Amino acid sequence: MSGIWGNNIKLSIFGESHGKGIGIVMDGLPAGIPLDLDGIKKEMQRRAPGRNEISTPRKEKDDFDLLSGYFNNKTTGTPLCCIIYNTNQQSKDYAAIKDTMRPGHADYTGYAKYFGSNDYRGGGHFSGRITAPLVFAGAVAKQILEKKNIIIGSHIKNIGNINDHAFDPLNIKGDVLKKMIDKTFPVIDADKGLKMKEMILKAKEEMDSVGGIIETAVVNFPVGVGSPFFDSIESKLAHILFSIPAVKGVEFGVGFDIAKMKGSVSNDAYFIEKDQIKTYTNHNGGILGGISNGMPILFRTAFKPTPSIGKIQKTIDIKKRENIETQVKGRHDPCIVPRAVPVVEGAAAIGLLDLMIEKDGIGWML
Amino acid sequence: MSGIWGNNIKLSIFGESHGKGIGIVMDGLPAGIPLDLDGIKKEMQRRAPGRNEISTPRKEKDDFDLLSGYFNNKTTGTPLCCIIYNTNQQSKDYAAIKDTMRPGHADYTGYAKYFGSNDYRGGGHFSGRITAPLVFAGAVAKQILEKKNIIIGSHIKNIGNINDHAFDPLNIKGDVLKKMIDKTFPVIDADKGLKMKEMILKAKEEMDSVGGIIETAVVNFPVGVGSPFFDSIESKLAHILFSIPAVKGVEFGVGFDIAKMKGSVSNDAYFIEKDQIKTYTNHNGGILGGISNGMPILFRTAFKPTPSIGKIQKTIDIKKRENIETQVKGRHDPCIVPRAVPVVEGAAAIGLLDLMIEKDGIGWML
Amino acid sequence: MSGIWGNNIKLSIFGESHGKGIGIVMDGLPAGIPLDLDGIKKEMQRRAPGRNEISTPRKEKDDFDLLSGYFNNKTTGTPLCCIIYNTNQQSKDYAAIKDTMRPGHADYTGYAKYFGSNDYRGGGHFSGRITAPLVFAGAVAKQILEKKNIIIGSHIKNIGNINDHAFDPLNIKGDVLKKMIDKTFPVIDADKGLKMKEMILKAKEEMDSVGGIIETAVVNFPVGVGSPFFDSIESKLAHILFSIPAVKGVEFGVGFDIAKMKGSVSNDAYFIEKDQIKTYTNHNGGILGGISNGMPILFRTAFKPTPSIGKIQKTIDIKKRENIETQVKGRHDPCIVPRAVPVVEGAAAIGLLDLMIEKDGIGWML
Amino acid sequence: MSGIWGNNIKLSIFGESHGKGIGIVMDGLPAGIPLDLDGIKKEMQRRAPGRNEISTPRKEKDDFDLLSGYFNNKTTGTPLCCIIYNTNQQSKDYAAIKDTMRPGHADYTGYAKYFGSNDYRGGGHFSGRITAPLVFAGAVAKQILEKKNIIIGSHIKNIGNINDHAFDPLNIKGDVLKKMIDKTFPVIDADKGLKMKEMILKAKEEMDSVGGIIETAVVNFPVGVGSPFFDSIESKLAHILFSIPAVKGVEFGVGFDIAKMKGSVSNDAYFIEKDQIKTYTNHNGGILGGISNGMPILFRTAFKPTPSIGKIQKTIDIKKRENIETQVKGRHDPCIVPRAVPVVEGAAAIGLLDLMIEKDGIGWML
Repeated sequence: MSGIWGNNIKLSIFGESHGKGIGIVMDGLPAGIPLDLDGIKKEMQRRAPGRNEISTPRKEKDDFDLLSGYFNNKTTGTPLCCIIYNTNQQSKDYAAIKDTMRPGHADYTGYAKYFGSNDYRGGGHFSGRITAPLVFAGAVAKQILEKKNIIIGSHIKNIGNINDHAFDPLNIKGDVLKKMIDKTFPVIDADKGLKMKEMILKAKEEMDSVGGIIETAVVNFPVGVGSPFFDSIESKLAHILFSIPAVKGVEFGVGFDIAKMKGSVSNDAYFIEKDQIKTYTNHNGGILGGISNGMPILFRTAFKPTPSIGKIQKTIDIKKRENIETQVKGRHDPCIVPRAVPVVEGAAAIGLLDLMIEKDGIGWML
Repeated sequence: MSGIWGNNIKLSIFGESHGKGIGIVMDGLPAGIPLDLDGIKKEMQRRAPGRNEISTPRKEKDDFDLLSGYFNNKTTGTPLCCIIYNTNQQSKDYAAIKDTMRPGHADYTGYAKYFGSNDYRGGGHFSGRITAPLVFAGAVAKQILEKKNIIIGSHIKNIGNINDHAFDPLNIKGDVLKKMIDKTFPVIDADKGLKMKEMILKAKEEMDSVGGIIETAVVNFPVGVGSPFFDSIESKLAHILFSIPAVKGVEFGVGFDIAKMKGSVSNDAYFIEKDQIKTYTNHNGGILGGISNGMPILFRTAFKPTPSIGKIQKTIDIKKRENIETQVKGRHDPCIVPRAVPVVEGAAAIGLLDLMIEKDGIGWML
Repeated sequence: MSGIWGNNIKLSIFGESHGKGIGIVMDGLPAGIPLDLDGIKKEMQRRAPGRNEISTPRKEKDDFDLLSGYFNNKTTGTPLCCIIYNTNQQSKDYAAIKDTMRPGHADYTGYAKYFGSNDYRGGGHFSGRITAPLVFAGAVAKQILEKKNIIIGSHIKNIGNINDHAFDPLNIKGDVLKKMIDKTFPVIDADKGLKMKEMILKAKEEMDSVGGIIETAVVNFPVGVGSPFFDSIESKLAHILFSIPAVKGVEFGVGFDIAKMKGSVSNDAYFIEKDQIKTYTNHNGGILGGISNGMPILFRTAFKPTPSIGKIQKTIDIKKRENIETQVKGRHDPCIVPRAVPVVEGAAAIGLLDLMIEKDGIGWML
Repeated sequence: MSGIWGNNIKLSIFGESHGKGIGIVMDGLPAGIPLDLDGIKKEMQRRAPGRNEISTPRKEKDDFDLLSGYFNNKTTGTPLCCIIYNTNQQSKDYAAIKDTMRPGHADYTGYAKYFGSNDYRGGGHFSGRITAPLVFAGAVAKQILEKKNIIIGSHIKNIGNINDHAFDPLNIKGDVLKKMIDKTFPVIDADKGLKMKEMILKAKEEMDSVGGIIETAVVNFPVGVGSPFFDSIESKLAHILFSIPAVKGVEFGVGFDIAKMKGSVSNDAYFIEKDQIKTYTNHNGGILGGISNGMPILFRTAFKPTPSIGKIQKTIDIKKRENIETQVKGRHDPCIVPRAVPVVEGAAAIGLLDLMIEKDGIGWML
């Protein structure tokens, strides 16, 4: 089953990139919450392409329509449906090549799963465009968490082999994270940011693409949320993060590097100061036994390079069962990472909101 | 909710390390499947401690009892309950230190979530011992998948900073994977294996611990299984892998390294040969758009060092709200990675079985 | 959580009667199924008001739009979203009385649950209108079941104290059920049908309303589908039937009357004839131990009278916390039972389809 | 899937009547709740057979063992596993007749679903004995609800065609309900109770059985709990009630009789008195739009007669595919209704607890 997620907040996502519309239903939101719709629009613009020279010139209007669940400027508590109608879709680009299985895309796997009946235009339901409704839902979740001063923010940690500094796992603060949200290319070190953009432009010129890693932090998340085993914070967040197209790795705290450490180093020793319990280090990224310990939650998400590149590639024709070559036309991003930032944050917000409601019920949010 | 997982195969895990018993209920198994109980016992022995010098001398008998769901040497199709009774538990070791929040463990987070009412002895429900029932369920799932020639196997990719070779992502074969299952310390390069064991023994002497990474491959998995978005293979597997205590990172295919590649390299170009569709490379680890493409599925799981070390550590007393020091006594593993191998494989088997049943129903398995 | 249902086919329903639109997302449909959209429209017209003199003159256009999941006249296998835009809504009728808690409606309970933030216009998300998307989904499910010759049909068993004959629980046939689908007022005995209509018209004149009971049969449903305990056919169907507004009772086979029987009578004795296993009687309505036995499945659903009546009624003003009187204006149905028939059938179809997929996977439907 | 139920409290039920043990895992209980284990034992004895002359002489020891989730006399908050070991099972009674499909039982349907591999002894997983763990879980839920003064109680409304009085839907009180819990044969009118017992004994002499109806009330349930559509109180309760073997009908409030009423009668008019909102009548059984309105919740559950009767019955041999006759031996109940009372109450308690947690989180219970 592809479209449904959640225990306490439930999402139902739908849409094909060249169908009539894409959207999402959010079920389980509390009633009476005012939403900052302009703030949501702003989040969605972070995802939309066509904003600057490093992105594709293809413009997507992500204007959305709330069909239900929002009345008199507040959530009703009943299911909220957000629709984004598809415009500016150039469908003629795809009809002729529907039997070409583009490398790195889900053309072949989607064909196999859906017996060739899926909407192939622009990737159909596999298109990165379908992350737009996810950003909407994530923006709603972020606003609700922010009412409790829980702040989520990210920066681009890597593009190709260019590395930004890391967030300070002990002292990262909410206002620093909020500043990141305002940047179209959020990095800590501006020079590294310039090098990253150069790398992206160079790839674009070479008709190629690059990947990257996003680092995300969550501050002020209360202690004692989550579970051991099957609903650990890591499980819940990883489940929804790996749902984002192009994600190939997720790690928490120090992540894979923790495997190189000794226990005497990786253990985060506790201390109490002014009746607040903290740790001297934060290699575990704020999560132990699947449950939050009050320290900043930190995780990293790895994105593969955009599969659509202009270079000629070997592939197959699925109908003729022949080896062919292809050259993907159209207007594509050399790097989706900057646009993926609000998707990652939104996904994390939804996961954490789901766990908050599990603990405190719906009244918590008010 | 901590104990329940799954859509088509459902698991319900329970137990505390020093309670009467631990176990798991498997719901949704097909009827009429004979199980190789000796094979299951063998899998469980791979997890049990006390087998060799690099592990803890603490012995755990993992004899299990099938209370239901198995009759006349076949599954009945009704829920199957496996119980492992706790023996050889030295509970007196824990009572005096229940208010000491051991660093790296879930003592503090569990205390916060469960208001101090959880069973603290030996980590209670957070103990690594609770992976034993997961190995049982995983062993059942592996046997069912193997009836369709789907083989899962792993090796230890890293211990600390010692690296083994990688699996060949294109050509890894089922018989190579099966050989790994027979090794207590599965590595490809025997010399690297020796270095790894040295590192573990050295940590043990220093009253410290080390972490590591397990690399797992799945071969002969059919094309077209999985979904885009919320039930992608990566989402499903990551969800259950991150449920395993001590896991801090999961990556698929080339994983985090894919972020350093160009699209022209990371894209796996297709070709058809003798009517079989394959790819020249396999950076995506056999999964595109969340769905299998027929190539070997590859992933890596990062384990942090065992939190229980003999060195003195700073921490707090949660009742007195004071800073204290502690020295964890007892008999602990300097490295859980070799014992975690059947847990990782079992978890993956359960996730893949769930997706197979989603596609083909229960009759598939027969 | 109100809007999500299902294990193998998942539904997400949304909408308020006076919002922009209402709709449903169906997730888990197989790919490649052509749908008879005219047939679906016809089903939806069976529900829509304003068709005849016994119904309300209020017209609802139930034209629907498929935003996703349907391409080249076949299901894609990806989530299918159906939207019905709200037109012909007279919202001014409701604003002045939003604090009046109409008896028999969900005004007060919805106010309590949603803290007064729900859309009160026309009942909002509680309106019977929200059954329109359910009829859509049910119509899709019915068409899929019909490809396997599984036929669902109903008749009005009771209006007030007027009783129609019962379906023959042993010999009810698919063609008889199909004929019922073509009738706007489906009954077996035409005279009883006339008496029922008289009763409805009389209630309308008296500014009152009447309730009724719908009897539904399912033929050719295969043996061995369903489960004991929590996913029994009765559990699954009752769950979705009781989701329909105004339903206050559900019974299977002989239903409540079985409590008056002796076991020697209520037991359905088996016999085998031409290698087909049948029963001499069918008091159990085709279900034993929660699983189908191959005999016709029979159940009855009880609907309370429409709460909206023109008579003056005592009630309260929730803001002023005062006792008041009210007279519900607007154009309302004296009896919703004839219009509820496609809702009941559709709900049952969805439940049975979900169980069929559990057994045979998605490929079953092709 | 048969064994798993719930959203906020999750149950996993397992066991066959002649297997090693039966049991249930409860997941999602709050931590720190003391349980009255003697009270639970008392509830389970209400279900156990062999207590009096109207029941079967077959004794079932329902001693239970808590393997996990209970420590220092309080719930830990981690999954709680309760096991009841099977003793006093006379398995030789069943081996010879495993191919005889007893009428009214799930022998044939279970054979079909489980391909003949199910444990047929004593009905296996279909046995009424498997309601014992459900009574355990229900007893825990009842105790938790009672901490908030929410009381559930029942009486036998009908045995065969003998009717007891009904509960007063407006004024039924908690202490009256509690008194019912202490009666082994709970009725309002003692004379009717005697007539019912006569009828049961007479059926026993005639080697036959009778069915009955249980009426249940819930008082002090707060307003605003539940949902429209798929998680309505009726849906949730009916789902779990119809999971109980032998249930063939469930109705709320006036139930099926509401279909005979006029709207002007069935509507429950509101009034406010001393700032408390009530209704003059309670035909809707305390539920409107799927949500509680504060009035007593009332429902009725119809049980068919025990299928196991001593009379000779026609049936089939499933292996030989022949018509045969059978006479069920063994020690069986002529009427399960008195023993089903704690099952019905427990089931309702679990369903209502699940909805309470949805609203108020886990902290509610403390």
